[in-house]
Order: sequence, then C-alpha cells, then structure tokens
Amino acid sequence: MDTATLADAIDAGRAERLRFEELEYARLTETVAGYPRGSVVLPGGVVIPGYPSIGRVHSLSAGLREQFDGPFWAEEKIDGFNVRILRHEDLLLAFSRGGFVCPFSTDRLPDFIDPALFEAEPDLVLCAEIAGPENPYLEGSPPFVTEDIALYVFDLMRQGRGGFLGQQAKMQLIASHGLPPARVFGRFGPRDVDRLRDLILQLDAEGAEGLVLKGESGGTRAKYVTGCSNVTDIRVCSEQLLDLPPEYFINRLTRLAVFVTEHGRQGDRELERSLGHAFLSGLDRAVERSRARGRVDHRYRCRFRERRNALHFMDHMAATGGHRVRMAPGMPVQQDGYWILEFERVFDRMTGTLATALSGAVQYD
Amino acid sequence: MDTATLADAIDAGRAERLRFEELEYARLTETVAGYPRGSVVLPGGVVIPGYPSIGRVHSLSAGLREQFDGPFWAEEKIDGFNVRILRHEDLLLAFSRGGFVCPFSTDRLPDFIDPALFEAEPDLVLCAEIAGPENPYLEGSPPFVTEDIALYVFDLMRQGRGGFLGQQAKMQLIASHGLPPARVFGRFGPRDVDRLRDLILQLDAEGAEGLVLKGESGGTRAKYVTGCSNVTDIRVCSEQLLDLPPEYFINRLTRLAVFVTEHGRQGDRELERSLGHAFLSGLDRAVERSRARGRVDHRYRCRFRERRNALHFMDHMAATGGHRVRMAPGMPVQQDGYWILEFERVFDRMTGTLATALSGAVQYD
Repeated sequence: MDTATLADAIDAGRAERLRFEELEYARLTETVAGYPRGSVVLPGGVVIPGYPSIGRVHSLSAGLREQFDGPFWAEEKIDGFNVRILRHEDLLLAFSRGGFVCPFSTDRLPDFIDPALFEAEPDLVLCAEIAGPENPYLEGSPPFVTEDIALYVFDLMRQGRGGFLGQQAKMQLIASHGLPPARVFGRFGPRDVDRLRDLILQLDAEGAEGLVLKGESGGTRAKYVTGCSNVTDIRVCSEQLLDLPPEYFINRLTRLAVFVTEHGRQGDRELERSLGHAFLSGLDRAVERSRARGRVDHRYRCRFRERRNALHFMDHMAATGGHRVRMAPGMPVQQDGYWILEFERVFDRMTGTLATALSGAVQYD
Repeated sequence: MDTATLADAIDAGRAERLRFEELEYARLTETVAGYPRGSVVLPGGVVIPGYPSIGRVHSLSAGLREQFDGPFWAEEKIDGFNVRILRHEDLLLAFSRGGFVCPFSTDRLPDFIDPALFEAEPDLVLCAEIAGPENPYLEGSPPFVTEDIALYVFDLMRQGRGGFLGQQAKMQLIASHGLPPARVFGRFGPRDVDRLRDLILQLDAEGAEGLVLKGESGGTRAKYVTGCSNVTDIRVCSEQLLDLPPEYFINRLTRLAVFVTEHGRQGDRELERSLGHAFLSGLDRAVERSRARGRVDHRYRCRFRERRNALHFMDHMAATGGHRVRMAPGMPVQQDGYWILEFERVFDRMTGTLATALSGAVQYD
C-alpha cells in the first residue's frame, strides 16, 4: 500500500498508526483499497491481509450440498484466538485478528516456532490458533490443552500476496518445517455426508469444537460446530450471563437444537442435564462470588518469557479493558523461568444486578 | 375525571377513546391526573385505576426484612392474565391490564361470577387472574387448571376510589358472595422466614408460580416466585426463543440461580435436567415444525358463550396481532354449548432463522 493511500485512510479514520517498541505499523479499522478490517501495513508498505471470517453452516446435509461443488478438506476448528505470525526484519511478531501486535502471543512464539523457518521462508505468514487454559483472552480452552497454551497452524500466506497457499503446499511446508498443525481429517466431497457425520459425532464425543471445511479449488470455506461446543461455550460464560450480549446464549441454544435434531438426539437426558448444568454451574458461582466478595469476576493467569512483554500486555489491558481489569498486586512474578501475570476481569452488570437482588430490594419488571 | 381533563389527555396522546358494542369508554396510555397507564374512564367520568405493578424480591430472607416492618398476608401468585371486573349499568365487563374491554374474559364472566353480587355491591371491582390451557393470550397455565380456564379473585376495589379493600374486608366479601379466591396462606411477619421458606418450597414442589405478599397496613406489596416457575416459563416459551426479548430468558435464568443458591439446591441433577429439557424440548419442536411445515407457530384454542364475542375477539386479534395471527378456517364453530375459536400465532424470527439454517446457507456471525 503506497504512503498516500495509507495517509488518506488514516485521515479518514479508516486506519490507525501504532507502535510496538521500535516497530511503527498501521492497522486498518475499515476496508481500504480492497484490504479488509484487521489488515496490517508494515513499514515499507507491505500489507498482511486481515484473516477473513468463515461462514457457518447449521445443517451438515444441506450445507455441504449448498456450499461445495468439488472436493474440500476437513480440518479441526480450535477454540482459541487467531493470530498471524511473521518475521519483519529481525522481529518475530504475532498480530491479533484486529491487527494489533499481541504482546502475549509475540512473547511466546519462540516456545512453538523455530525462527530458522524464516531463514528458509522469509515472506511466510502463519495463521494460527492459540488455545489453552492460560490464555489471557478467553474463558474456555480445548480439552486437549490441559495446561499453559499451545499453538496450531492452519493456514499459510505470503507477505504482500492475497489468498492462502493451497492445501498440499501448506501441508508440505508444515511437515518439512516441523510446524504444529491443526488436525487435518482428510479430503471429502459434497456427497460424503455420512463420513462427515461420523467425524463430527466423534469430535462431539471428544469435546472438540468442530470443523473448518476448505475447498480445494477456489476460496470456498465453511465451519460446522459440534453440539457440545455450544454447551461448553454456555458453561464457561454463564457466570457473565448479563455482561455478554444475550445473543451469545440465544444463538448457541438455537445451533444446539439444529444439531440435536439433525443427529436424532432429541430427548437425550444426559445432554439436557449438561445444558442445565452449563447455565446453573456458572450462575451459582456468580451468586456465590457476589455473596462472598461483593463482585463477580473471572481470574486469568498467563505466563511470559520476558518481563517487558508482560508490561506491554499490562499497558494494553489498561488501555482497552479500563476499570474492568484488575491486575493482582506485584505482577508479574517470576516462577519456573517464566514471568507470571494474574489478573481479574470484573463483570459489571452481574455484580450490580446480583448485589441488588441479594440486598432484598424490589425490582419492577 | 372531568370531561375537560379527559379531552386534554386524548389530545395529548395520553388517553384513547374506545368502544365496545354500545359502551363508549377511554383508557389511559400514560399517567393522567395521578391515575396510571391502564386506568379506565367510564361514561360519566368514574375512573377504574390501572392495576399497579408489584415489585419482585429475589431473596426471601433479605427481601422480607427490607420490605416489611409489620404483618403481611401471603397469597398465591397465579400464572394467568389480570382483569378488572365490574358492572356498568346493565353490563358485566372485564378490562385487561391495558384498559381494553377483553371480549374473551367478558364473555366468560357468567361462568364464574354470579351477577347477583352486583345487586348487593354495585360499585365493587374484582381484580382477578384468568388462567388455564384454553386462554387465548398465554402459552402456559397452572398445573391445577387442567382444562378450559378458571378465574381467581385476589383483590377488591370500589369504583371511583383509590386503593384496595383491606385483607379482612376482602376475605369477608369473597366468602359471603361465594367468589372464587386465590389461595390465601395466612398472615406472616418479617421474621417468619422459615415458615415462608417451607411454604415456597411446597409451592415449588407443586409446580405453582409463587407468592404475593400484601402488607396488612399501608400499600406495601411484593412478589416472590418459585424456582420451578422460571423453568416452566422457559419450557413453554423456548419454541419462540428468537421472538421474545432475550431478557425474558436471561432474567428467568438469573432468578432461578438466586433461588437455587438461597435454598441450597446447587448441583441438583434433576433440576439441571429439567432446565436443559425446558430449552431443548421447545427448540426441538420448533425445528420439527420448520422442517415439516416451513413455519414455527403456536396453536391456541378457546371457547366463548356467545358467537358475537368470538367475533369481537377475532377483530381485536386482527387489529393488534396483524399478520402473525392466523384464524383457522370456518371459526368459530359450535360445540357442547360453546363457540370454539382456534388460531395460530406465527413466530416470524424463528420461522426465518430456522428456514435459513436448514437450507444449508452460510451465516456470518
């Protein structure tokens, strides 16, 4: 992107200049020159396109027929956050979906990626999901990441070029460089409804989130989630029932019902119980926090390799999370070779509503 | 209310002139001269005040202490709709909460009230709940009304006077005229937390909705609902998950959690199952209707004594329910001495969203 286009976009409020240590870059807050929101403009003008959103199909049988007319690959959809990883000059950087350098992800890259990769492939961009119980953004994590975080590469791009590498080229580069991949379940066609149904039910039983289906030719992509992933989302977020948009819960209930009826699981008492438990366990926890401490919050813990990145992250939270984030005193603290950061996010509406309810006040509705 | 005040209110859009057969009356759409929204102005200017909303306490132990400093009566809260019943000249009329003559309730009054009551007490106004499976407004009904509808008187007023009759006077008039009462569970004090806890748990086990607490002196009133009433509301309404305000469900989940923790029922697997069932049974039904008929709707059936009242009711539905109400062809039909009316309410957003989901289309969220 040339300097004039970027300057105009910044003047028009469609892009924002940012700095991370010595790096000056920009992120797009709206579409500019065909690049979507979340794209990053590096010094010199190279653009890293924003990661595109992937449409969701609700019905497997109808969705395959409707979305694909040729072969596609089925990969695991992982419950984490999306980063784009690249080397710029000597810096190994991870950018968030919104186009910010993520100090946490950037700090941890050397734990998962051998920088020698970029000697061989200097213009490669890895699209990866970071997931695990010690991530600072999400309450939930996949059952197969039991501590800290892990990183899963699921797409590759080249700096300055649009589109993703094809599936074969991607799998070859992942294998030859020993990158950690998202699970690939193979190549399917629009008529393979039964094979994919077996696969999704297996993933459902494992507690996995679902599938991303990627057309072998053309850019067609679609995601399809397991029934259990909806229950899991409700379970990990029900303690913030009043602080998330209500559609968060309403949409997951609707998706769960379509999954249940598509796979003939109506009247499954264990599923019903797990859904009721998903709502009540989080809400019970919220009421108990309110009684015990006068506020409802969620505690996060994550680890950094370098203290300065923990401080960058704390600045970022202070700037974006405002009064809702409380860092524990004395953070970060050193432990087992890492710098540990602990903080809480306060759920304001849960805190206020439960305090009123438990005070004995009346409410008119 | 004098003619000038009413005329001004109508000009200002705070009141509305209405007609029911030969009766010309007005309803207040906002507060006018101290009378609340829903008040009715009869010919001659007598005002029937709107039924006041009653505040809800979420915690029994804190709420009693906070709301009452003297004795109060505990009555059953019934899951139905609220009407004010009176005689004006020769007409026996039932007005809805909003201040409309309800053709359905008005039609059915002679089944429940002996008009001779108004020979002895011409200015009496009965505040009553109409509940049962054959009501035209609500999806749910109390477990103790297994067919048609029933009527329960819970307050008395006098035409043209503010406030309710005291509890003793009310119970005397109800008894001496053989009116059907809402259950009265007795007189309590703010320290009777244990007795009231036993009572609410008994009502919860019966599937009842809860209590209305009415101060013996002064106007203090409060309602407190059972845990199961929240589950029941979710169960009867989950097939219209996307058509009700999401707060309908969110508020009931919050109330349920406060009830559960107050009464030490955390981790109750049967309750968890019934909550999951409440959501999924309605949603499964909605998905099945969508697959089978291309739309999601709820069927109502109610009975009238007089054909002309059924026609009044159909006009009222056509005027207020618009395209969302479909009368069955040939209605009303005569059966067992009544005129039967059957109709459906279509849930537009459920219909649209499920049709899209089941078509295989992708959705970006």
